[in-house]
Parts: sequence; structure tokens; C-alpha cells
Amino acid sequence: MMGRIYIALLHYPVLDRNGSVITSAVTNADIHDIARSARTYGVRRFFIVTPIAEQADLVRKIIGHWTRGAGGALNPSRREALEAVQVAGTLDEIIQSIDREESGPVKTVATGARLKDSSVSHGHLSQLMDKDGGAFLLIFGTGWGLAGEVVEHSRYRLEPIHGSGSYNHLSVRSAVAVTLDRLAGRKEGVR
Amino acid sequence: MMGRIYIALLHYPVLDRNGSVITSAVTNADIHDIARSARTYGVRRFFIVTPIAEQADLVRKIIGHWTRGAGGALNPSRREALEAVQVAGTLDEIIQSIDREESGPVKTVATGARLKDSSVSHGHLSQLMDKDGGAFLLIFGTGWGLAGEVVEHSRYRLEPIHGSGSYNHLSVRSAVAVTLDRLAGRKEGVR
Repeated sequence: MMGRIYIALLHYPVLDRNGSVITSAVTNADIHDIARSARTYGVRRFFIVTPIAEQADLVRKIIGHWTRGAGGALNPSRREALEAVQVAGTLDEIIQSIDREESGPVKTVATGARLKDSSVSHGHLSQLMDKDGGAFLLIFGTGWGLAGEVVEHSRYRLEPIHGSGSYNHLSVRSAVAVTLDRLAGRKEGVR
Repeated sequence: MMGRIYIALLHYPVLDRNGSVITSAVTNADIHDIARSARTYGVRRFFIVTPIAEQADLVRKIIGHWTRGAGGALNPSRREALEAVQVAGTLDEIIQSIDREESGPVKTVATGARLKDSSVSHGHLSQLMDKDGGAFLLIFGTGWGLAGEVVEHSRYRLEPIHGSGSYNHLSVRSAVAVTLDRLAGRKEGVR
């Protein structure tokens, strides 16, 4: 049985271009794109993490528009995607919530284009998920990536996505889509 | 030798939710996300196709800001990505331009979440590109997907991206990233 995947998109603590820890602003395209990718690849829940109450309220309003409001009536597939989105104030809050829901503790997986000393490749993580059958939380950072403390406290550090060369500056929306496809995409006969 | 990949993002002729042929509006997030994915996966050029002169001018202004203006100085990796973006009025114009540049005619590949009777899987296309060594143009639609005439005139119809179930409503930004990763991503030992 495939492990159960959860996603967290962190707006704090993340880095800015100089490596300082900041709180980033929530982006509308992140909510929609990642919700649609999450739904496509069978993710259990997509958590948007921000400690700023006004930003959390804004996200709840957007989700409400598409799940209970006019948007959902117009676009049922968008409603379906946004139904799995949830707002949280901190990463710890999410981990506790998943732990309560699942039989065992969730395994956290830090991601990032600049992660050094990664502990697991996409292929290896996919195998682990198959074997383990438990819950895995993939943690994605906004801004210039996850703060060191998040990476250090994660159970696994996922290998950065490699394209065809040394350039890897995917948007977080694209990185989530590619990561989910590598972990949970239906494999064709020939890859 | 790997075939050379070009990308076209069409804003005409594409479908609306009712299946009528329309011209869609250019989206800022499409330009940036797809340019970054294209650069990451070694795409030769990313063409944005719109027949509307005002929209084409807007895209040129955005590209200029990031390649020659203040944006590029602030963010060199964004500049590098946007340097490969080009605006065109029609798909035919692009095909002729690539044909002139390449030794042989470019092979066109229609993509779409609802493509029926696909002629090639991602794995198969990847093999074809390796063997052929020529130029391939991946055509992506905005709105509700490519109009029938584009699909019919394409050399190949790429199999839709399958997630883990029947839902597949990825954003075009995510679909481009996943498609490029499947075709040109550096393969790990275990997938």
C-alpha cells in the first residue's frame, strides 16, 4: 500500500535572498496550483502555513469562495481541489494534527533546490513510502527556501530536483508538481 | 544525442469551458514559471503565442524588465530564464522559424489533459527524441486546452499526465514542469 502523502507550504520560517529568516506573503497562484497538483496525485491534505492572522483569513476566504461560494458552482474541479486545503499557524500544529489522525507519527520530508547532504532520492523515498505504508509530510518553502531549523528537524531531506544542467530555479508550484509526479505519478511502461 | 526541445504556449486557438474556440489572456505566472522550467530542463526557446498586439507588447515589456531592466540586475537567475522567451503571433510563424534554424523540419507534439487517441507516451517520446536527435516543439494550450485543428495538424499527440487517480486538472504551469521532467529530467538510479 502506498504511503499517505500530506503537503505543507511554509511562509515561515523561510529564507530571503540573503539567507535571513523571514515570513513571506501568501501567493494566490500557489494555493490554486498546488491544490490542483495535490488532488491530481492523491495528496491527503495540503496545509498552507502562515503565522500572520490576516494572511490566514485571506486564504480561508479564497478557499471558501471556491468550496462553498460562487467559484465552486462555476468550476467543480477547482472546488474539489480546494476542499483539501487547510490553513495552519505553525508546522508543529500540522504535525500534531496528522499524528492524531494517523496511527503512527508522520515522517517529515524537507525539500529544497539548495538542500545539501540530502538523505533520500525521489526513487528511494517512493520505495520507502510503498514499504512503510504510513504518513509522510512533504515540506516546501516559499521565498528562497526552508530555514535551517526546519531542515534539521525533518526526518528526511529530499534530493533537489535536477533538470538537464546545473540551473534549478523552479517555482515552488512547479517543484511541488514534479516532486509529486516522481513520487506518486502513475508509471508508464517506459520512462 | 538528446533531441532539442522547444515549447509553445498557445493563447489562440484554444477552447473555453464549452468547447468554443477563443483567444485567452496572457498570464504573468505562466511566463515566469514556464520560463524557469524551460531553463531548468534545457529547452531551447519558449514561445508565447498570442495574436493580440497589445498582449504581445505586454509580454515583451515583462521580458525586457527582467532581461535588460531593473529586474534582471536584482535577480540574475530570473534574467537567465526569461532570455529564452519569445513572443509570436501564430503557431505557424514559430514552426517556420524553428525550421529555418534547424537542419530538418521540427516535429510538433500536441499536449492536453483531455487528449484522446494519444499517439505517444512520455517514455516513448523521450526515446524518440534520443534516437532522432532533431528538434521537437511541445505545444501547450491555455484555457480549456488546444483547439482541435492544432491537435490534428501535430505530428504526435502526447499521452495526458496521469496522477494517482482519474482527476487530472493540473495548471498549465504544472503540466509543463511535469512533462519536461518526464522527458528531460536527469534520471535517478531508482524511479
